[in-house]
Amino acid sequence: MNQTKNTLLRDYLSQRRLFTAMAAHNPLAAKLAEEAGFNGIWGSGFELSASYAVPDASILPMGIHLAMMRSIATTVQIPLIADIDTGFGNAVNVSYAIPQYEAAGVSAVVMEDKTFPKDTSLRVAGRQELLRTEEFQGKLEAAVSARRENSFVVIARVEALIAGLGMAEALRRAEAYAEAGADAILIHSKQKTPDEIMSFIQAWSGRKPLVLVPTAYPQLTEAAIAETGKVGIVIYGNHAIRAAVGAMRQVFTRIRQDGGIHNVDAQLPSVQEIITLQGDAQMREIEKKYLR
Amino acid sequence: MNQTKNTLLRDYLSQRRLFTAMAAHNPLAAKLAEEAGFNGIWGSGFELSASYAVPDASILPMGIHLAMMRSIATTVQIPLIADIDTGFGNAVNVSYAIPQYEAAGVSAVVMEDKTFPKDTSLRVAGRQELLRTEEFQGKLEAAVSARRENSFVVIARVEALIAGLGMAEALRRAEAYAEAGADAILIHSKQKTPDEIMSFIQAWSGRKPLVLVPTAYPQLTEAAIAETGKVGIVIYGNHAIRAAVGAMRQVFTRIRQDGGIHNVDAQLPSVQEIITLQGDAQMREIEKKYLR
Amino acid sequence: MNQTKNTLLRDYLSQRRLFTAMAAHNPLAAKLAEEAGFNGIWGSGFELSASYAVPDASILPMGIHLAMMRSIATTVQIPLIADIDTGFGNAVNVSYAIPQYEAAGVSAVVMEDKTFPKDTSLRVAGRQELLRTEEFQGKLEAAVSARRENSFVVIARVEALIAGLGMAEALRRAEAYAEAGADAILIHSKQKTPDEIMSFIQAWSGRKPLVLVPTAYPQLTEAAIAETGKVGIVIYGNHAIRAAVGAMRQVFTRIRQDGGIHNVDAQLPSVQEIITLQGDAQMREIEKKYLR
Amino acid sequence: MNQTKNTLLRDYLSQRRLFTAMAAHNPLAAKLAEEAGFNGIWGSGFELSASYAVPDASILPMGIHLAMMRSIATTVQIPLIADIDTGFGNAVNVSYAIPQYEAAGVSAVVMEDKTFPKDTSLRVAGRQELLRTEEFQGKLEAAVSARRENSFVVIARVEALIAGLGMAEALRRAEAYAEAGADAILIHSKQKTPDEIMSFIQAWSGRKPLVLVPTAYPQLTEAAIAETGKVGIVIYGNHAIRAAVGAMRQVFTRIRQDGGIHNVDAQLPSVQEIITLQGDAQMREIEKKYLR
Repeated sequence: MNQTKNTLLRDYLSQRRLFTAMAAHNPLAAKLAEEAGFNGIWGSGFELSASYAVPDASILPMGIHLAMMRSIATTVQIPLIADIDTGFGNAVNVSYAIPQYEAAGVSAVVMEDKTFPKDTSLRVAGRQELLRTEEFQGKLEAAVSARRENSFVVIARVEALIAGLGMAEALRRAEAYAEAGADAILIHSKQKTPDEIMSFIQAWSGRKPLVLVPTAYPQLTEAAIAETGKVGIVIYGNHAIRAAVGAMRQVFTRIRQDGGIHNVDAQLPSVQEIITLQGDAQMREIEKKYLR
Repeated sequence: MNQTKNTLLRDYLSQRRLFTAMAAHNPLAAKLAEEAGFNGIWGSGFELSASYAVPDASILPMGIHLAMMRSIATTVQIPLIADIDTGFGNAVNVSYAIPQYEAAGVSAVVMEDKTFPKDTSLRVAGRQELLRTEEFQGKLEAAVSARRENSFVVIARVEALIAGLGMAEALRRAEAYAEAGADAILIHSKQKTPDEIMSFIQAWSGRKPLVLVPTAYPQLTEAAIAETGKVGIVIYGNHAIRAAVGAMRQVFTRIRQDGGIHNVDAQLPSVQEIITLQGDAQMREIEKKYLR
Repeated sequence: MNQTKNTLLRDYLSQRRLFTAMAAHNPLAAKLAEEAGFNGIWGSGFELSASYAVPDASILPMGIHLAMMRSIATTVQIPLIADIDTGFGNAVNVSYAIPQYEAAGVSAVVMEDKTFPKDTSLRVAGRQELLRTEEFQGKLEAAVSARRENSFVVIARVEALIAGLGMAEALRRAEAYAEAGADAILIHSKQKTPDEIMSFIQAWSGRKPLVLVPTAYPQLTEAAIAETGKVGIVIYGNHAIRAAVGAMRQVFTRIRQDGGIHNVDAQLPSVQEIITLQGDAQMREIEKKYLR
Repeated sequence: MNQTKNTLLRDYLSQRRLFTAMAAHNPLAAKLAEEAGFNGIWGSGFELSASYAVPDASILPMGIHLAMMRSIATTVQIPLIADIDTGFGNAVNVSYAIPQYEAAGVSAVVMEDKTFPKDTSLRVAGRQELLRTEEFQGKLEAAVSARRENSFVVIARVEALIAGLGMAEALRRAEAYAEAGADAILIHSKQKTPDEIMSFIQAWSGRKPLVLVPTAYPQLTEAAIAETGKVGIVIYGNHAIRAAVGAMRQVFTRIRQDGGIHNVDAQLPSVQEIITLQGDAQMREIEKKYLR
């Protein structure tokens, strides 16, 4: 099963076909993303931290993220790309973490070159400190070496643009990480337009596929990305939780205003729709066959 | 802290003021419910099961529910009422479970009189088998005896109407459970109108406050409930997950249709709004004071 | 990896060679059992419950047992047989539990025909109530159907002798469970001598290999068991925790008597021996290669 | 309950009476230590890591340690001192971790001044790198500020002697940590005799009680420690797991040699003794009262 998922993801990467991944913070969100037609799931640290109402800054313990990845991977048939932040420490921690993520059914991890504990890349004025290139190369090599199946994908995330270190440094690090064995390079930018990212893509040697997360520059379409011929994956990193928050806020406010659910109930998906998403049909079949 | 929360809930019950509780399947949903003005949180088994994409039928292990209750109780300042289904087995299991829920920061539990493993009450044609009254009384007495603080609230959920056993049986059981020490009686109906519930309320002796979950009859307003003078709590049992599902589905579909997020992004809460909900301000204060 | 372990266990079973399994309540105990030369590990519910100081009566939540199985399976190269008690509920619960145990790296499960919640079979005067044969057959069929790999082993545990229902009923149930698809039959007796078990073995058709747990009749040797030609596995179900308890008690008492560790320290395995068991050498190799 | 435990521990500290704490890696070991007469439990990271067969080097995720602390605190009536290593990151991580440990029922934490990820202090040639004094002071202040109850104890562990930085640096850091609000100072040495520790004690101002862990110099008795008048706690940091390993190894080997349990069984604590430790009597009382 894992092999099949991993191979599917690798095929997209090797052919530079654009693989689309939607963030999920629980198995239900992942199931909805699968139904909508995304190619894979992004096991987002930002979304999971948000769903626990804590900052995305290495605060949520690894165990909670790992367990959620396992539940998501069990629920959907499409590949899951896990956001493991900085790898939970140094190269030793990475070595112990990777087989656990692999055993959880994950097809790929993204590891970023910031120091532990990290700060979210999404905040304008956060702490953004990078590891020495050699140190992060060691962590990547540890990850590559720790995987059980060669089909498992290791993605290096370059935070040089986020940290304000400039294009040359970003490119230099991307090359170094490819050199160390990364299967793909995630390049992140906090510019409000796609210009910086497009410059990076243009300058990139193309030896490994790129991964983009167009949170800050939503105007960048998949068509435009595909046209570059250098990108393997686009990740929508926070739209599941943002959609959920918007809707819950609105519905909760309305119920308090109305003093009841009489006005909101009919506008929501029915209880039966939720029951269907829970796999009721499959359970009823089990009941019919095995309950005596 | 727990004492304060428990006492707040008990004050509503003893005064038959209507306490409003919104379902939450993670701490973020709970925080939104608190911000919207609900008096408390419903730690819904249905919603949590749904968020894991499994049926609400004693399938999600107790440990996952308990851990989520702990996270929610830590996040919000308002009382949390935990849905412990049938109590995870017999009276012995209840005795071991209650102190764990109490230690998790929960202010109340709702335990239902169905056999383990349960089937959801929300499905029209589920398995609905009730325990003998005496057996469930034993479980309630075990729960009451196992709590550490007398302020902790034990609510008995009567499923007689759901199981089609009629009004007389429902009332008889409600009295028996009050006799056994339940602090309140949750009465559930699957009728599409409030008539059955209103008949029950009218016939009820009033010795203990009632708890309602108007999922099937959303037209029943809080004003109408309050007017009866016999109800202590109204629970909105599934509107958080339904709101979230509806919004995620719509946004996911749109992104796939558009081949990008250019059309949906501006309509969603901003990333900064999520970061604020994550408690960013509090973390930055900690940074300023203690990071050197 | 799982396949290899499963196949190894299946080879013993099909050839009626005696596979020896030692109980473990944590990965370290499992590692010591592997080093001592046992063929496999018994993921004992009794031992794990004991290590948490709670009765072996469906009190420890499934999540804790499952997580411990995952950790043990990761630590040792030999097959792990998980004790899943009654399967955590009915046939539906079994259907959802089996793939999780399989994904945790377990090679076999033992499921017993008692009602949920169970009572330990080791206590003389416990509650011992059996399911109807047909109902337990349904649970076995559910288990067999839910496994992902056919090499995964499902063992039915017959509690008829423990429940005092007699030899005929035990044999009848063993046949029925074989019929339902069990790969082996665990037969349990609480007699203080092996006579009852030996009678069962003699009367058994032999269509499936048997599994023995000689807790009550320790005089039964592996040689004697092997001689019957009908037994596939012998499980030593509680000797790890009993050894640990005896030693800790003695050492703790001595330290309190002595007012210090000066007399006990030299008699204990050295700290360095523990460090070696923790896999220090492997970690230092990782350090050398990847820490920069 | 917590308040009572915390106050008990604080009384020992303020009076410089010697509080004895035994390491435990599970609730059963803790219960045995309580029965033997130790004043408290040491929630040892070394022992817990060892029981999972991984190095004591920030590899076991925080969630596993925290959950074990909760189970231990629930099982025993004596105070539990949790070993939180370096605090799981920086001062921000500490701020989020402390309330979770406090809510788990822990009475004290010990935090060490090494960098994250740590290496065990017990290994002769490990990586031993210390934080800047000011940075660790910030972490201590964060811990003190994050506790909910003032009775909760924060202990600073000075690793300067382990890291080979000399006596003056160790004393300087101890003073600085007391200044930052630590309630006690754990001073660790790897010398094979108590000389270095005794020199430290002699030189220590005494403004805060000291905590000793005589692993390397077992000849140091409680009487000798008490005589100094400056020590509040002595921790036996690894004798539970060492006792358990020694006994399991011996019993396992013997069973494999004998081809059966016939020679070991009678020498082990009986199954009934384990059942008693599991709290069987308490459960049978619950059964009698509430099972119907």
